[in-house]
Amino acid sequence: MKKPIKRIVVATLLLVMAGAEFAMAQKATWIWYPGDYEIWLGNKMQNRRTERGTFFPPFWKMDSHYVLVEFSKKLDLKTEETIRLKVEGQYNVKLDGKLLFGYPENVTIPAGKHLLNIKVHNQSTVPAIFVDGPTIKSDNSWLVTFEDKEWIDESGKASDTSSGTVYLNAASWNFNAPDELPSQFKLATEPKAAVSSEKKNNGTLYDFGKETFGYVKFNGLKGKGTLNIYYGESPEEALSTDQCETLDRIPVDQATARDVTVSGSKAFRYVYVEDEANLSYSSVSMLYEYLPLDYKGSFRCNDEQLNKIWDVGAYTLHLTTREFFIDGIKRDRWVWSGDAYQSYLMNYYLFFDSPSVSRTTFVLRGKDPVTSHINTIMDYTFYWFMGVYDYYQYTGNKQLIEQLYPRMKSLMDYCLSRRNSEGMMQGLAGDWVFIDWADFKMSKAGEVSFEQLLFCRSLETMALCANLMNDPENSAKYSKLASDLKSKIFNVFWSPQYNAFVHNRENGKLSTQVTPFTNMFAVLFGYLDQDKTKAVKDNVLLNPNALKITTPYMRFYELEALCALGEQKYVLKEIRDYWGGMINLGATTFWEKYNPQEKNPELLGMYGRPFGKSLCHAWGASPIYLLGKYYLGVKPTSPGYQTYSVEPCLGDLQWMEGDVPTPNGKVHVACNQKEIRVKSDEGTGTLRFKSASKPVCKGAEVKQTGDKQYEMTILKGQEVVVKYKNVE
Amino acid sequence: MKKPIKRIVVATLLLVMAGAEFAMAQKATWIWYPGDYEIWLGNKMQNRRTERGTFFPPFWKMDSHYVLVEFSKKLDLKTEETIRLKVEGQYNVKLDGKLLFGYPENVTIPAGKHLLNIKVHNQSTVPAIFVDGPTIKSDNSWLVTFEDKEWIDESGKASDTSSGTVYLNAASWNFNAPDELPSQFKLATEPKAAVSSEKKNNGTLYDFGKETFGYVKFNGLKGKGTLNIYYGESPEEALSTDQCETLDRIPVDQATARDVTVSGSKAFRYVYVEDEANLSYSSVSMLYEYLPLDYKGSFRCNDEQLNKIWDVGAYTLHLTTREFFIDGIKRDRWVWSGDAYQSYLMNYYLFFDSPSVSRTTFVLRGKDPVTSHINTIMDYTFYWFMGVYDYYQYTGNKQLIEQLYPRMKSLMDYCLSRRNSEGMMQGLAGDWVFIDWADFKMSKAGEVSFEQLLFCRSLETMALCANLMNDPENSAKYSKLASDLKSKIFNVFWSPQYNAFVHNRENGKLSTQVTPFTNMFAVLFGYLDQDKTKAVKDNVLLNPNALKITTPYMRFYELEALCALGEQKYVLKEIRDYWGGMINLGATTFWEKYNPQEKNPELLGMYGRPFGKSLCHAWGASPIYLLGKYYLGVKPTSPGYQTYSVEPCLGDLQWMEGDVPTPNGKVHVACNQKEIRVKSDEGTGTLRFKSASKPVCKGAEVKQTGDKQYEMTILKGQEVVVKYKNVE
Repeated sequence: MKKPIKRIVVATLLLVMAGAEFAMAQKATWIWYPGDYEIWLGNKMQNRRTERGTFFPPFWKMDSHYVLVEFSKKLDLKTEETIRLKVEGQYNVKLDGKLLFGYPENVTIPAGKHLLNIKVHNQSTVPAIFVDGPTIKSDNSWLVTFEDKEWIDESGKASDTSSGTVYLNAASWNFNAPDELPSQFKLATEPKAAVSSEKKNNGTLYDFGKETFGYVKFNGLKGKGTLNIYYGESPEEALSTDQCETLDRIPVDQATARDVTVSGSKAFRYVYVEDEANLSYSSVSMLYEYLPLDYKGSFRCNDEQLNKIWDVGAYTLHLTTREFFIDGIKRDRWVWSGDAYQSYLMNYYLFFDSPSVSRTTFVLRGKDPVTSHINTIMDYTFYWFMGVYDYYQYTGNKQLIEQLYPRMKSLMDYCLSRRNSEGMMQGLAGDWVFIDWADFKMSKAGEVSFEQLLFCRSLETMALCANLMNDPENSAKYSKLASDLKSKIFNVFWSPQYNAFVHNRENGKLSTQVTPFTNMFAVLFGYLDQDKTKAVKDNVLLNPNALKITTPYMRFYELEALCALGEQKYVLKEIRDYWGGMINLGATTFWEKYNPQEKNPELLGMYGRPFGKSLCHAWGASPIYLLGKYYLGVKPTSPGYQTYSVEPCLGDLQWMEGDVPTPNGKVHVACNQKEIRVKSDEGTGTLRFKSASKPVCKGAEVKQTGDKQYEMTILKGQEVVVKYKNVE
Repeated sequence: MKKPIKRIVVATLLLVMAGAEFAMAQKATWIWYPGDYEIWLGNKMQNRRTERGTFFPPFWKMDSHYVLVEFSKKLDLKTEETIRLKVEGQYNVKLDGKLLFGYPENVTIPAGKHLLNIKVHNQSTVPAIFVDGPTIKSDNSWLVTFEDKEWIDESGKASDTSSGTVYLNAASWNFNAPDELPSQFKLATEPKAAVSSEKKNNGTLYDFGKETFGYVKFNGLKGKGTLNIYYGESPEEALSTDQCETLDRIPVDQATARDVTVSGSKAFRYVYVEDEANLSYSSVSMLYEYLPLDYKGSFRCNDEQLNKIWDVGAYTLHLTTREFFIDGIKRDRWVWSGDAYQSYLMNYYLFFDSPSVSRTTFVLRGKDPVTSHINTIMDYTFYWFMGVYDYYQYTGNKQLIEQLYPRMKSLMDYCLSRRNSEGMMQGLAGDWVFIDWADFKMSKAGEVSFEQLLFCRSLETMALCANLMNDPENSAKYSKLASDLKSKIFNVFWSPQYNAFVHNRENGKLSTQVTPFTNMFAVLFGYLDQDKTKAVKDNVLLNPNALKITTPYMRFYELEALCALGEQKYVLKEIRDYWGGMINLGATTFWEKYNPQEKNPELLGMYGRPFGKSLCHAWGASPIYLLGKYYLGVKPTSPGYQTYSVEPCLGDLQWMEGDVPTPNGKVHVACNQKEIRVKSDEGTGTLRFKSASKPVCKGAEVKQTGDKQYEMTILKGQEVVVKYKNVE
């Protein structure tokens, strides 16, 4: 039976690929060397942070694009055609090895086989080309290299570049017109008005109604003096002129009234303006700045609080999904791998915007040589590997792995070179072992079990990717390293005494502390047998005396692990308590940190500063992921949703309904106590559910797989409607 | 006896270092991350080449500067002081860990101990700072890093960067005023007039009298139309409108007369201008563009032809010593390692401009990762290593090795990773094995003996540098690799049959061809015993039937080897024949290639193009090196001319006189048949000479060291005058 199935899979793949190529040839787009645009844009964006009016750049290495890039394309034309060329940079054009004069903007190419090369130099912005002709169009099928190695010998013969030159397929985003220059990229903006204003102290406090991001605008401004603008995610912050995190001081000198938009974008809900006596303006508004994205995922249920949580989560993710997935919009406005990894997962259940994932993955990796962990954080290196493979699993697109595989290997080489004599990784000079901003004390020294676990998962990921890249030798190497490390993790850190993983080993001495991190990730990675799973659930995850997580960051994985263990009811309560708790405190976006258990919870301060905490932090938005994956219950079971599963779980809800996006469509799920409806635009799904009665579905087979357990197939485009009886 | 000597050496070194530091603190200069300015300037310069009006960039990887750099300095102030700050880029200033507001231009620092950090972001040009205060001045004592790794924990505590952050000393050139922005660097220019003009065909041919470089200028230009400008190193080239290598087509549209300078610099002696009927101008002149340099070295003798050769050589080297040492001024105008290595050596005998050597060394190396050989050429990688050590030997400055040592190691790792199973290097995919543009056929495949010889020398160089860097482990490793390889070279390639090294081994089969390259370099490296030296001299170097070298490039080493063997008389004849031959043919600078033995020598064509040959090529200038090192006879015997030797050799000359520059002065040598005079500004020299009679020197001891062999010491500042009788 195996062979026919294989054949079908292959045929489908070929169709998909042919379709992709056909689609590509339809329109021209600006192209560049993979990763280069992302790195350049990342430099621009991550160097925009200010702290109280002072430039505040990252502390890790920022790379640069290749300043000299060659683009090439083999052509086979039925008829002569003329192409238009637009280039960002100084360039030359070579047709069949012969240089054309000057900087041609139009080139006519005769019928037949030809080789077209365009070589571009650009120091300030990314070398990029846009080529458009009747059939010739710049797209991902073009090849690029940063060293063509073509030299001319004494007799005038060009060297053979076919074996010694490394080419990649060109990369693009969505600059699909000649005048949409990649170097001129700007997010979209939209004018918004303040909802109220109030005289306070020596100025006016404006409230924009909810957390937002953009450029404050003074309408009809005139006079001479300085505008002092203090931004706040809270009114307290905006009014604290000497402690608010961001501010602007704008010199004004204009006799006639003119609208003035502040040049630096900021995050705020409140803006407090103090101006000097001889300035006047008619009103204050703003330009809201955002990445235009479709909300492809959705969730609605009978619990309005949960609906509100989903909405606030979606808005939080949207605000932090910009040039890249960033951590928070007030600070750091940087790309952090651990934060981004969560954004990727949430994105698959909301925007399904693959370019945002790929851009972020590229900018995080930067270029060789690897001189430190990603963001200098050991755990963040490991999340990066995991994110690359997830991208393939959700999108079905192998290209990201293809483009990144050499950089994946060199990053893993860096890790492997930093193992200790036990084959484990521990923080060396310059390494930041982060894990979490926890309220309890934990050691980051020695061999931290959590880091070994992520390292092990990263090695497994490398083995999978090596396989995809037809590199069986390295796949075997990584698999062996992973399984050896896994044995060590269990041998060293699993404590029969505590029936859980302990935190670390320092100078050969095992810790007696049980922290949640290693334990809950071991559940998520499927590393535990039934007994150990139960032990972790009872001793760590559901143990009221266990150490408490107080960041949404780690609550993400904690609650996911509980969902994976079927604790959806419990998790719903936690969501209401934690995220509902923030909303009850007035949150319009979710926060970097929140501890509802504290007596006088610190709502605004962090990092030793009274307004240091970010009140719009991507890692706060996890309910959108949990609700999509573990309540609507949709996830891919093979790359790109070719197959997927739907396991709806109401928890304590009466009904729920929503969409989970897939690469080219969505899976719609509606579920109440008596009926489940599922419809999908693509792929072949398996619906699994429990029912207290024998379920009924018109025109489709429902298979019983166990006690009250049922399963059925969902075909593309055909709605499945099942009558059943919820057992919860 | 050993101990006192050591103590003296150490004391001297300390004095030198203290002196250097004292000198540094005297003035502020623009500083940056080592190599970054060079790489940036190299991108700018090497992407200026055009070929017949088309942009013609290099074919190797071009790196970029770090876009985000932190500068820091520990201060200990006796009194409060205010510094002025000028920065290229967006920046912040941190004093004792506290960020100052905005972009401060003046900072007052209280008395006492402080830490000052300035962090700069600049994508387009190199992050650079200029700091000037009464005692605080930006100079090479400042530290720089491209990843400071300073993060802030949840409590606000900054991480410890003392162990995990890699700092280097800042680099500088000679931008010593706040307004001399490194990004605005331009070579000097000087107006020059054409010496004659002549109506030809449809235009006018202007002759500037000799080879030159710069910008053509049209004085009093007016009208509407296109100026067609054809450049020629020869009149034939300028007049060949469809084959000349460089040209400009300038659209003109101006009713009133105005001077117009063409924007792209070109190499030429002749300029042929064709303009459209309705254009007029009063005259054509040029702006000669050059790097201002002192001619510290000099040479004069009784042979006027030799004096002329020296002058033309010096001018050739000056024209090709620009932002960097380039190959030729017409083309490629790129930095080539093999060419540059010769420029370094010539420079030590003419300008002694160390910054030009260090700039060129940095730009050639670029950054990690190493993805190909330097300029993609295997031999050029090896010359690079040799050049770094020579720099130390001639200048006595260890800093270049300090800054480059990590990049030296990674480049050597690249080489080591490309050895075959025999431990030898052979051209792999993408490698260019160059050796020379020879007129005879030679294989570049398999194990080329010449490449192994350079590889061996590079390993020896690495061992020396590792020692200097207090890295005994690697020094031992490189030494062992070198000696193993050396044995192999002799075992495999030394042919008892031919009594010389044979050319290569391909698929296990040894070649029977004896080429000059390996043999003459083995002499220069001192690898041969007396018998083998004699064999090489007789069978290769002085054998009229041996394969002939026809580039000044390899004649450089051929004649140097002969000089090293005492054949100065023979070499003078060769110089007169070869370089004198070019002058007799009208050369005003020396050429890329010249074969006086050809019947109808190809004077202008190369690379399959009628005017492809460069008529001003750095590697053509070797007589200035040979005359300084082997006739005046001056060379360092310990780093920086702390000790040196002077071995004057007249060859067939009656008299000669000249200067050889040293780091802080010069050695003056005057010599005729009866008298030798030597005076030096620094170091301790040893004068060695032959005399047919017992030499006499007032007030100094002359030691006889062999038959007619004498030796005496030259002390700093004291002229030695010896009466002797030349034996030649």
